[in-house]
Amino acid sequence: MKRHTSQRALGTPRSAIRELLKLTEKPEIISFAGGLPDPETFPHEELAEIAADELRGHYRNVLQYGLSEGSQTLRRAVIDWLRPQGLDLSLNQVLVTTASQQGLDLLAKAFLDPGDVIFCGLPTYLGAIQSFSLFQADKIGVPLQEDGMDLDVLEEQIAEARRVDKVLKAIYVIPDFQNPAGITMSLEKRKRLLEIAEQEDLLIFEDNPYSQLRFAGEAVPTLKSMDENGRVIMLFSLSKVLSAGLRLAFLIAQEDLIEILLRMKQASDLCTSKLTQHLAARYIKDYGMEDHLRILRERYRAKRDAMIAALEKYMPTEEGITWTRPDGGLFLWVRLPEEVDTEEMFPRALEHNVAYIVGSAFYVDGGGKNTMRLSFSVNSEDEIEEGIKRLCQVVREELAAKRVGLTAS
Amino acid sequence: MKRHTSQRALGTPRSAIRELLKLTEKPEIISFAGGLPDPETFPHEELAEIAADELRGHYRNVLQYGLSEGSQTLRRAVIDWLRPQGLDLSLNQVLVTTASQQGLDLLAKAFLDPGDVIFCGLPTYLGAIQSFSLFQADKIGVPLQEDGMDLDVLEEQIAEARRVDKVLKAIYVIPDFQNPAGITMSLEKRKRLLEIAEQEDLLIFEDNPYSQLRFAGEAVPTLKSMDENGRVIMLFSLSKVLSAGLRLAFLIAQEDLIEILLRMKQASDLCTSKLTQHLAARYIKDYGMEDHLRILRERYRAKRDAMIAALEKYMPTEEGITWTRPDGGLFLWVRLPEEVDTEEMFPRALEHNVAYIVGSAFYVDGGGKNTMRLSFSVNSEDEIEEGIKRLCQVVREELAAKRVGLTAS
Repeated sequence: MKRHTSQRALGTPRSAIRELLKLTEKPEIISFAGGLPDPETFPHEELAEIAADELRGHYRNVLQYGLSEGSQTLRRAVIDWLRPQGLDLSLNQVLVTTASQQGLDLLAKAFLDPGDVIFCGLPTYLGAIQSFSLFQADKIGVPLQEDGMDLDVLEEQIAEARRVDKVLKAIYVIPDFQNPAGITMSLEKRKRLLEIAEQEDLLIFEDNPYSQLRFAGEAVPTLKSMDENGRVIMLFSLSKVLSAGLRLAFLIAQEDLIEILLRMKQASDLCTSKLTQHLAARYIKDYGMEDHLRILRERYRAKRDAMIAALEKYMPTEEGITWTRPDGGLFLWVRLPEEVDTEEMFPRALEHNVAYIVGSAFYVDGGGKNTMRLSFSVNSEDEIEEGIKRLCQVVREELAAKRVGLTAS
Repeated sequence: MKRHTSQRALGTPRSAIRELLKLTEKPEIISFAGGLPDPETFPHEELAEIAADELRGHYRNVLQYGLSEGSQTLRRAVIDWLRPQGLDLSLNQVLVTTASQQGLDLLAKAFLDPGDVIFCGLPTYLGAIQSFSLFQADKIGVPLQEDGMDLDVLEEQIAEARRVDKVLKAIYVIPDFQNPAGITMSLEKRKRLLEIAEQEDLLIFEDNPYSQLRFAGEAVPTLKSMDENGRVIMLFSLSKVLSAGLRLAFLIAQEDLIEILLRMKQASDLCTSKLTQHLAARYIKDYGMEDHLRILRERYRAKRDAMIAALEKYMPTEEGITWTRPDGGLFLWVRLPEEVDTEEMFPRALEHNVAYIVGSAFYVDGGGKNTMRLSFSVNSEDEIEEGIKRLCQVVREELAAKRVGLTAS
């Protein structure tokens, strides 16, 4: 029956990463591969109390169908939370989604016809690549620099795409602690990106799962908070700051765009669970996010510090080996010498009981073969040190093998 | 920014029904419009206990990301539940979805390219029409008879579509207590439908939200349980039998099809909430569904009886007024004389503080203007009697007005 498969599904191959991830599940492996939040940060005791209370006292509501646009209580809670961050939102500018992956699906549904161009980082988030691919969009990759996307290259690529009469729709960015690279876009680049979008009549999809997890440096305003022309649609997720298992995020945009996205939401899953929405809403309202986020930030900073320290201690001091130093989020990004292929190296890493994510998975142009993403979020500091020690041994062996190979050939 | 809207979104107009439904929310209105399960059937006390226990004892698991294919515990629970009903399923034949609307979205994504033909009932479920429309499929309507889809007409339409070189993909049916008509497909027709699908190389999408809610007559085997050639993909939902707010359903099909649907699931929302999955799994395992379903069936039978009795008591005994007598589910279907347009009649019904769903919303061919769907699930028996009394008064007035109009013109 596979012959009935749609063209769009045929163009969405099974993820190699998923296959690799399955290999990392053995308990003896220290894995830096997943993008999971630290489960010890989930406020489970508070959520248990709220859940029992909601299910006993409000079951007629929380166990029933809800509005497609999402529970008003939850939308108000997030509006109040984001107001001090320069976002003055009305209820109709916020749509609840079944986490941000659904937000990406709805954006692609609403705005991307086959062949339409979307610009995205090199590297960029794998799940976004999947969504845009499924809707047969033309993904054009723009290299990242230390302060975010290379906007000169972006402008060249826009001009080039216009020359060949492509339909340009949007730019996809993760400005804070980018997944996978851990890079933050500078204020200057954010301003210029908004200008380019205005000039070129493009939408901006601002993916924002990590901005609340800044543990170093100074906050940079979100693109959405600087958006004067209603071009920015922000995806704001609770997965990393409250719980990934509640499956909750928000699309934040001007009303006419939310109206289109709401129709897509209806056809996609009718509504998000009201139970999970009420758990989040009551937690945010009754307990507040500030204390909770302070704990998270401290925890993740300590883990990042442990990972950076271990990399500095164990990584060969060889030309061409670099890593990013993120000011927040869950990831950092390692670049190895050009001759190393991290996909080829992966089995060797598993032999040494350590795992990472192959960087090329995050490239829409087939590049990034010598890169990898390391997550510092779930392991303890001791595990991080031990895992990085193993990984650096793997890199040493791989480099040695390559050099022998080069000599031999 | 609306000019950036995709063709598929432009082809998905805002639902007129949604607008009408908003008008029915006043407390003085007795509404038969919604398709909601009776909230008093939700086992909230048990779910409250399970939720507190899961969140306290298993928070590392239930508040974290889960597998895209769904929790093994929940899949095993549903496999055990369905085994006595003639379905012998393996774990890889079951995919958890964020309720059945997502199942429809994944089916459309996986199998329907723009212009591909899908056959569906006249009338059929509105949410399915939305999903298939969004993916720009060609929906061909097949009239329903008292024992299900008119298969002679289906065969003619298949032949006609082949003559004009269309790509035929699937037949969408709701064999048990169909939404909206409350009709059940006979065993003979189920067998013949499977034969037609085999002969014409079509998939069957069997939507099954209500089969467990049979309160009269004898069970007919599901198409999936008679599916020898792996052509049937069944959508099996917990919304009507456990809770609509948990947002849980299953796609059940042979492994190679589940494999494609799983890739679609990953790109659509990564995974369904593990918390809601575990609530359902533990309820099914620890408490069993049989006692619970027995209570639901009794409750809905009493309500159906109340609605039928009220229709018999108050409806004008005029030629051309008929209604179905469902053996299960939540809905019955009323057909009025041809000259009545239930959309035109709707404001009059609101004036009389009663509401229904306009039948034409369920027709892909613009027909059904003289029909309406009545849900007997949420109102008490007294409310049902009073509401039907009001509705019958509305029908009388509408008929009288039409006849005056006819005489005058």
